[in-house]
Amino acid sequence: MKVAIVGVGLIGGSAALVLRQKGLASHIIGVEASPAHAAKAIELGIVDEVLPLPEAIAQSEVVILAVPVDSAIDVLLPVLDLVTTQVVMDMGSTKAQIIDAVAAHPNRGRFVAAHPMWGTEFSGPEAATVYAYAGKAAIICNASDSDADALATAEQLLKNIGMYLVYMDAHDHDVHTAYISHISHITSFALANTVLEKEKEEQAIFELASAGFESTVRLAKSNPDMWVPIFRQNRDNVLDVLNEHIAQLRKFKACLEKENWDYLRELIGNANNIKRILK
Amino acid sequence: MKVAIVGVGLIGGSAALVLRQKGLASHIIGVEASPAHAAKAIELGIVDEVLPLPEAIAQSEVVILAVPVDSAIDVLLPVLDLVTTQVVMDMGSTKAQIIDAVAAHPNRGRFVAAHPMWGTEFSGPEAATVYAYAGKAAIICNASDSDADALATAEQLLKNIGMYLVYMDAHDHDVHTAYISHISHITSFALANTVLEKEKEEQAIFELASAGFESTVRLAKSNPDMWVPIFRQNRDNVLDVLNEHIAQLRKFKACLEKENWDYLRELIGNANNIKRILK
Repeated sequence: MKVAIVGVGLIGGSAALVLRQKGLASHIIGVEASPAHAAKAIELGIVDEVLPLPEAIAQSEVVILAVPVDSAIDVLLPVLDLVTTQVVMDMGSTKAQIIDAVAAHPNRGRFVAAHPMWGTEFSGPEAATVYAYAGKAAIICNASDSDADALATAEQLLKNIGMYLVYMDAHDHDVHTAYISHISHITSFALANTVLEKEKEEQAIFELASAGFESTVRLAKSNPDMWVPIFRQNRDNVLDVLNEHIAQLRKFKACLEKENWDYLRELIGNANNIKRILK
Repeated sequence: MKVAIVGVGLIGGSAALVLRQKGLASHIIGVEASPAHAAKAIELGIVDEVLPLPEAIAQSEVVILAVPVDSAIDVLLPVLDLVTTQVVMDMGSTKAQIIDAVAAHPNRGRFVAAHPMWGTEFSGPEAATVYAYAGKAAIICNASDSDADALATAEQLLKNIGMYLVYMDAHDHDVHTAYISHISHITSFALANTVLEKEKEEQAIFELASAGFESTVRLAKSNPDMWVPIFRQNRDNVLDVLNEHIAQLRKFKACLEKENWDYLRELIGNANNIKRILK
């Protein structure tokens, strides 16, 4: 199978490495706006060649979009203008806007809206890793809007890289990911800013940072080029969850201010219920 | 060396396992208020025997306190009443109150106030692990208030289990740990409560939880028996950091509300500076 990957950073580069390692792609063509990333992707053997978008599409059976979610919409429309029998799949973290943007396109059926739920706090082709995707959920949104053969190809590809499939309406997807992914990034960014603002002794952070701190602040290293567009597209849902999160933090604040240790114990006991869901 | 460990849960149990594995303790005596934990600690080979506190002290050279920080003060005073040449070390996450509580005790010099910065979100003797402590910081507070021989024994023990030593004033310790450990737990508890409150579809949490969500919410599984006393003792510092954290979250909220994407990018870019300090 010949595959074009638009955007050979962390997400697209990792997809290329996994597809090649598993023998799923015979030839991988990169499409990349950054000359530095393009050169690096070739140097690292992530892609076989880098071509302009029209040539890449013409020579491929599957086109994977792995660019920030705002660019994905800008790229998907011209891609759909050019496709004939190709399957086009995106990998973005938001789904409602991209699906709405192409709803009326005559080639809508060639597009499969996917969100493989894998990522790290790093970015760029150097961050691409073959240890990606396996064992994680791949969400496919509004599957019935895709042509049956396009959907089957995308499903098989995602299963072949070790993912399990979850089907969801695009708007539900954006609500769920606001809870389960996007808010974690905001809390982590805000926690990093809190500590950087208050703790002027960087040596103390370095020496004392516990595993607990490192795990809660890890996501704060994530790239704004990826995350600003996600927050922008999922603004309403993220605001809703963020308001609830601030309200929950205010409960902890009230416990401390009023020295209400019984209620603090209750809040922590309730938080412990996350054990029921996540082992 | 004969060692008594008061509290054979995650922290004390792990200390026992590591001391034994490294051949540092010839005999380990547990002191444990919970009969179930005592039986489990013997069953798992964590301690050789469980004795009442006075007998345990009389038969030991080193006494390690590994109980919640409020109990540690209640236990340390009678322990210091009983010691002669023994070295007493605590492992608590707060330091100012325990040090103030024993400041005037005639045997103050036998006590070394330590905070080995290791832990997990689990608790009880079943959670004890030999993969503990190594490579982490052990903070010793107000070292000059300890007798030279007691300090040397505690330092050697902590180094022998693979920790590096950091020396600090107790009040500075409590400020730094509020930033670097305690606030992470509050954000994680609050994040769990946010998601549990808003996301009624537990199946969605289970299916979709990404590695990012799991790492930010991991600490929310932590035991209130350990954490309520920590927040209680370090109330003022934690409140100070929590207020700043809520203020930082409000900046993200304002960006979303006003659709100020440039400022959002700036906030995330600033958070990325945590990379400078934590690799």
